Amino acid sequence: MLPGVGVFGTGSTARVLVPLLKAEGFEVHALWGRSEEEACCLAKELGIPFHTSRSDDVLLHQDVDLVCIYIPPSMTRQIAVKALGIGKNVVCEKAATAVDSFKMVTAARYYPQLLSIMGNTLRFLPAFVAMRQLLGEGYVGELQVCDVRVYGPSLLDQSYGWTCEDLMGGGGLHTVGSAIIDLLSYLTGARARRVHGLLRTFVQQNVSIRGIRRVTSDDFCFFQMLMGGSGSDAVCCTVTLNFNMPGSFVHEVMVVGSTGRLVARGTELYGQRNGSKSEELLLSDSGWAGPEVTEMPLPHLQGLCSMVKALRQSFRAHEERRSWARGPVAIAATFEDGLYVQTVVEAVKRSSCSGEWECVEIMSQEPDPNHNLCEALQRNKN
Amino acid sequence: MLPGVGVFGTGSTARVLVPLLKAEGFEVHALWGRSEEEACCLAKELGIPFHTSRSDDVLLHQDVDLVCIYIPPSMTRQIAVKALGIGKNVVCEKAATAVDSFKMVTAARYYPQLLSIMGNTLRFLPAFVAMRQLLGEGYVGELQVCDVRVYGPSLLDQSYGWTCEDLMGGGGLHTVGSAIIDLLSYLTGARARRVHGLLRTFVQQNVSIRGIRRVTSDDFCFFQMLMGGSGSDAVCCTVTLNFNMPGSFVHEVMVVGSTGRLVARGTELYGQRNGSKSEELLLSDSGWAGPEVTEMPLPHLQGLCSMVKALRQSFRAHEERRSWARGPVAIAATFEDGLYVQTVVEAVKRSSCSGEWECVEIMSQEPDPNHNLCEALQRNKN
Repeated sequence: MLPGVGVFGTGSTARVLVPLLKAEGFEVHALWGRSEEEACCLAKELGIPFHTSRSDDVLLHQDVDLVCIYIPPSMTRQIAVKALGIGKNVVCEKAATAVDSFKMVTAARYYPQLLSIMGNTLRFLPAFVAMRQLLGEGYVGELQVCDVRVYGPSLLDQSYGWTCEDLMGGGGLHTVGSAIIDLLSYLTGARARRVHGLLRTFVQQNVSIRGIRRVTSDDFCFFQMLMGGSGSDAVCCTVTLNFNMPGSFVHEVMVVGSTGRLVARGTELYGQRNGSKSEELLLSDSGWAGPEVTEMPLPHLQGLCSMVKALRQSFRAHEERRSWARGPVAIAATFEDGLYVQTVVEAVKRSSCSGEWECVEIMSQEPDPNHNLCEALQRNKN
Repeated sequence: MLPGVGVFGTGSTARVLVPLLKAEGFEVHALWGRSEEEACCLAKELGIPFHTSRSDDVLLHQDVDLVCIYIPPSMTRQIAVKALGIGKNVVCEKAATAVDSFKMVTAARYYPQLLSIMGNTLRFLPAFVAMRQLLGEGYVGELQVCDVRVYGPSLLDQSYGWTCEDLMGGGGLHTVGSAIIDLLSYLTGARARRVHGLLRTFVQQNVSIRGIRRVTSDDFCFFQMLMGGSGSDAVCCTVTLNFNMPGSFVHEVMVVGSTGRLVARGTELYGQRNGSKSEELLLSDSGWAGPEVTEMPLPHLQGLCSMVKALRQSFRAHEERRSWARGPVAIAATFEDGLYVQTVVEAVKRSSCSGEWECVEIMSQEPDPNHNLCEALQRNKN
């Protein structure tokens, strides 16, 4: 029996998610929006019976067993942790900081019987599922290099908001880079040990953001990660993100090894073994039968679709509508993966400031909120 | 009247260059090879009347007015400087070190009436000539990012030699990267101030290089350059070179600006302005009518062809066979450009060791050869 769903968010992802959930047989009972108007408007459009701007109304809704959280990063932790505390299963987007991510990990560990996954949809895209399997089977031999490029139009919203603010979780690195960081650890089975990066905000003002307001989030970012191994064994990953290219969308993930290579271009997978003269198409685009969505790149859209299918399989196996099977969602990113990704994002930002390679050190206990205060007191004493 | 030519080298470039020179009306009078056998064999094949393994025999040959030097980097400085001293015009490949490059600059400055250019053929490729012009005309607006990728098969020779040795000028960065570094300064009209890079030798041994011998030159290199401007005004350049990809050849140079972008793929040029929905083909491949050469990538081959045409125009304008006009070869890389490129290459190598951003500081006087000795004496004294 499928659980009832409550959705947080009225953005483009929520707008796509609800029809996908319905198509798989989920009932969406409640929608939360930041304002009554936004919530009301979208609920009407999508045919959701209940809407609200108060988060508890969704979290405590008796028909809601699964909560999908697609809201600005700075608000995610609060809702996700509360949802788990109330006993709801959670699918959510990334948080804004490593501290927030750590709090989410703590909650997820405390409620292991509840589903708690990050909505990193690229893991579910058939091209990447196949790529991971081929990597495991040794298609490329010993993995040497991963090379990722994502180019597209501006990520900024029409009006000034969190997407413009670095500290609110806006910017190419946080929004798109984090999906790539997660994907690469999924594909390689390894984690970044050291990172180096450079962030830029080329467009600091535009037609709708002007006056004293400036964009602080990055629209260009490249970073390198040394993953797994130690020293020269490490896999070299390079990622280039450029969101100053309206009218184009490039999403290319290449892995190169000692005996061959694999490239996912958009939703298609190509491969070439060293002996071969040309690339072979390993997985073609199956065509997108769902609703047309221009704001969401196809790899994310199709990945989202596959993730919803996996969720259905996970829940359908059980009588009780809140119980779920781990198998179908085993490839999903856990909250621990979310913490890792957030840690890498912050290390890349540090590197962009320091100009140096930065180590990726996963938080193992919550920083003392009085730490800064203590330091200040110390300084005054000396 | 065209000058008589002497060619140094028996490698793939020399083999292509001689027919191109002949097709433009140059007479090739003499060929130098490292061994009598190599020289004899290629001279016979290409119909060159005189061959030798003694460099002076070519440099002092009375019919030779222009010397083309395509030999291992570590030998280039010696021949180039001597040729200028004897009063011959010089086209040559890169040297092995910045000190060598500096000595070549000194010689070139001393004989300003002689032609002395680096054989960086990409500057002459029509796609890059057009790209540079469009950049000047403001096609992309304010330049923000350059993104270059060159992927291909191994650069190693069949047998162990200088291509395997980092210190001898082997490796992707020195061989191919230097052409890209030169190209980007040609395209942008700016120079790198700071660089960061990572070099790897993934394949240290192969069928022909084994036992105690190991490859020390890089087969993968990733570097960034901050060019021109200061601080956030700088153009961000990223270059990825990967020579572990047999069976493929990718040569892509993209420049992104505030109002559009240009991409050269192989020998073709594409562009897209921000308002437009798709790329336009700005310059199509004219087709290669010359001899088939598998070892040399098409952009370099066609660039070489255009450079030889430019040389003909430069010399043809004059009665005296050693005089030349600056106009047709004005876009060529000078020896000063060669020193700049070599300095960047060495800064990237330093960065790969230190892990830090390294400044590009062009040598302004020759380092004292006794410097190390003096330091040692100093240390002993203290």
